[in-house]
Amino acid sequence: MNGAQSLVHTLLKSGVDTCFANPGTSEMHFVAALDTIPGMRCVLGLQENVVTGMADGYFRLAGKPACTLLHCGPGLSNGLGNLHNARRARSGIVNIVGDQATYHRPFDAQLTADTEGWARPVSAWVRTTTKSADVGRDAAVAVQEARTAPGGIATLILPSDASWDEGGLVAEALPVPAAVAPDPATIGKVAKLLREKRNVLILLGGPALCAENQALAWRIAQASGAKLLAEGSNARIARGRGRPQLDRVPYVGEVARKALASLEHIVLVNAKPPVSFFAYPGKPSFHNREDAVFHVLTRLEGDAGAALAALADEMGAPEAAIPDPGPRPEAPRGAPSPEGVANVVAALMPENAIISDESVSYGRGFFPLTHVAPPHDWLQLTGGAIGDGMPVATGAAIGSGGQRRTISLQADGSAMYSLQSLWTQAREKLPVTTIILSNRKYQILIGEYAGVGANPGPTAMNMLDLGNPDLNWVKIAEGMGVEAAQATTLETLADLLAQSMSRPGPFLIELVI
Amino acid sequence: MNGAQSLVHTLLKSGVDTCFANPGTSEMHFVAALDTIPGMRCVLGLQENVVTGMADGYFRLAGKPACTLLHCGPGLSNGLGNLHNARRARSGIVNIVGDQATYHRPFDAQLTADTEGWARPVSAWVRTTTKSADVGRDAAVAVQEARTAPGGIATLILPSDASWDEGGLVAEALPVPAAVAPDPATIGKVAKLLREKRNVLILLGGPALCAENQALAWRIAQASGAKLLAEGSNARIARGRGRPQLDRVPYVGEVARKALASLEHIVLVNAKPPVSFFAYPGKPSFHNREDAVFHVLTRLEGDAGAALAALADEMGAPEAAIPDPGPRPEAPRGAPSPEGVANVVAALMPENAIISDESVSYGRGFFPLTHVAPPHDWLQLTGGAIGDGMPVATGAAIGSGGQRRTISLQADGSAMYSLQSLWTQAREKLPVTTIILSNRKYQILIGEYAGVGANPGPTAMNMLDLGNPDLNWVKIAEGMGVEAAQATTLETLADLLAQSMSRPGPFLIELVI
Repeated sequence: MNGAQSLVHTLLKSGVDTCFANPGTSEMHFVAALDTIPGMRCVLGLQENVVTGMADGYFRLAGKPACTLLHCGPGLSNGLGNLHNARRARSGIVNIVGDQATYHRPFDAQLTADTEGWARPVSAWVRTTTKSADVGRDAAVAVQEARTAPGGIATLILPSDASWDEGGLVAEALPVPAAVAPDPATIGKVAKLLREKRNVLILLGGPALCAENQALAWRIAQASGAKLLAEGSNARIARGRGRPQLDRVPYVGEVARKALASLEHIVLVNAKPPVSFFAYPGKPSFHNREDAVFHVLTRLEGDAGAALAALADEMGAPEAAIPDPGPRPEAPRGAPSPEGVANVVAALMPENAIISDESVSYGRGFFPLTHVAPPHDWLQLTGGAIGDGMPVATGAAIGSGGQRRTISLQADGSAMYSLQSLWTQAREKLPVTTIILSNRKYQILIGEYAGVGANPGPTAMNMLDLGNPDLNWVKIAEGMGVEAAQATTLETLADLLAQSMSRPGPFLIELVI
Repeated sequence: MNGAQSLVHTLLKSGVDTCFANPGTSEMHFVAALDTIPGMRCVLGLQENVVTGMADGYFRLAGKPACTLLHCGPGLSNGLGNLHNARRARSGIVNIVGDQATYHRPFDAQLTADTEGWARPVSAWVRTTTKSADVGRDAAVAVQEARTAPGGIATLILPSDASWDEGGLVAEALPVPAAVAPDPATIGKVAKLLREKRNVLILLGGPALCAENQALAWRIAQASGAKLLAEGSNARIARGRGRPQLDRVPYVGEVARKALASLEHIVLVNAKPPVSFFAYPGKPSFHNREDAVFHVLTRLEGDAGAALAALADEMGAPEAAIPDPGPRPEAPRGAPSPEGVANVVAALMPENAIISDESVSYGRGFFPLTHVAPPHDWLQLTGGAIGDGMPVATGAAIGSGGQRRTISLQADGSAMYSLQSLWTQAREKLPVTTIILSNRKYQILIGEYAGVGANPGPTAMNMLDLGNPDLNWVKIAEGMGVEAAQATTLETLADLLAQSMSRPGPFLIELVI
């Protein structure tokens, strides 16, 4: 058995059965091992940022890591943007990078690069395996690291000789450490705070945002009068009818500071203090009051469910009904507007849908208006590196078993970063409906430019405007094998969205806004 | 004057007048400065690997650096693949990355990443400027570093407060150190070698491959009987009728070792020893004979022209006529073949064309067959990170002043890595004809897989085959505003290629092979 074969056997034993891949020459023995050992689903992405973004989306839905297959330092570097987002999403990924043979690396052949150096900033764990006999052992450790709460990127770099040499040994799956259990003293302190103080915010992140944990948080909030919020950028929020209507920390600084202005105490549940996305001259870096006091119920690696359950118990918080969000809207008609698009989606999304939201500026108001829809999961761009919406949608559709309709709400500028995702959606016949919000500009930047104090002139607009020529998303999608149509009104959007849901495969709607 | 304004003024003073950009929020003051200070041509790329690849292509033709404008660590990371290629091409680039404000960075907002860590492996020089007063000074140093032979990537990281704060100071251009002059003792030794030994190879790289220096090398080779070769991967080779017919070190190991088997001495002129792209089990890492002796005429930072001139003088090498390559072929007809495509290009390319070659496996034989064409420049993928052909073509068209027809010979798999280039070609109305060699598979990997010893089964082919669904390059191009047509025969290819040359803007031909 060679190293590559021991790798595949070990991954399968460790429960990794999906591989998002864009291979190269140095990975041919890995490809050959995948070819002969049954059990791994291999999904090709035509650029590595699609590969890594799919692995992120997969974890968000499957709750377990997939592996990647990337080619040398440059193949890894092409996928770093979405590994950055995955790191911020706290997604577990076994990130496998083939590389130059150990003895060949010193000669600095063309593709040789600092693979470890590039991997480290996004990885919770990095190891280069130098001997075939160690590949199985290291792969098992990589899976363990990727699964350790809160989930992390474990980068395993495999020189080609470690793959092709004989002497591979299959390793058993290693135990996955449980999320860190809550400490009773902390529970007691937070319960006391919630009993004694008003103006308390419970800020939820990561696993605190699953349906069960939100229900616990809701009980606590009802019993204490505390306010609940989710972090600004979240990997996955369970929501819709039957779940608490949870707002997020707003993106825009002024709005966020206003939302947090009265909150003197902030209880963090797998969440971080609400930092502004960017600094602005003369504006504070944090959205909270300067004198706000932070209380950590659980750190990022903590067991949110156990902590919230213990807190609800400690407070004697009774079961609390979730308010009905009111009637579902009819799909509206007329010219597109942010509210109109949100209402179309709210009116038509099927039960248990997955929403991948990279709608950027146009979609800032989509979230509150869609809570009225049936239960669904909402996935966000977590790290701000644009171009994860479509790969995450693709991977989420796979990670959910391919039966849940995925709706990808996608700004056009960001879509161009990883448009190759569409081809994988077509090949894998995934139930993904992409709505391209086509305003033909980097609208968010035009807004930011205004903040600098002037109207953009021709040179600036040359860098902020995506027109001249206009992108034709119907042709682009069709060119990658995805059926597509254009909508210029809400009624056409609604018709196309409804139609897309009865199809087995992907569909793209270019909504000209 | 704020830091961003001092940056733009300093860049212009230092001769940098072209900016390849994909801005974000933290760069808005830079965008505003570009908007109000005239003189910088700003070219938008819709993904950063297009931006950095354009900057590489620009340098190869213009012979001076452009600057980039990238957004934070993840924006940089998206462009690392083509920065890797640019590093291997020894291209000078002033790589400007906006980033979080100095005081905001410690709070680890979503887009915060290890910008310096990612930049270092591709950069000859990295600096993060922390004060507006230093921006001008650091920009001048960056230009100097980028222009220092052989050309390098100077990464200047600009926290947003260094851009927006007042107190910017414009810096004067710094002197560019000359390439290292040849040492007379070395010239004497190499002349003696060439006089006394047979079986000598003169291996040319970088600036040794311009027309003038090739002519000097030709004289030396004629006078000594030495063999001339170019490195395997080259940023730019002047060639065609009137230039020596220079072969390159072959890509395939067996072929390369055969080509070098008789050569006992290798004189390096701005070149490195001929290392194999990858290691293969039981095969040597280098293509040269094990007992070959290397002699360095010039290091990478050396003045190839001065050294070759001194060597020709020292040897008393007379002027030597360049052999006529024979009659130019007629454009052939019939089913596409590698030879047929090469002959179509050889028959039709206009004088002074630029060829951007990322034709990978199908195009391995294009080079010798096209030497018969009028004088032209041939640009290659230098670092093996696929996806540079179309951005390099785009940047080269700009760097050459926009008057030279650029022919982009592009494999389909690699094309998918940076297809957004087409949009910039359309916006800038560049005279680029792209020929997509559409075999709908990663043919080079299927060949490599065969080397592993088996025929690929369905799982492997799922990762090596680009069919299911087929990409439609005509629709993809049209979707980005580039006119396009499909060819399935050589006569249609020839017709479309000829037509494309009479157009002012870009055109794409999908050649189904």
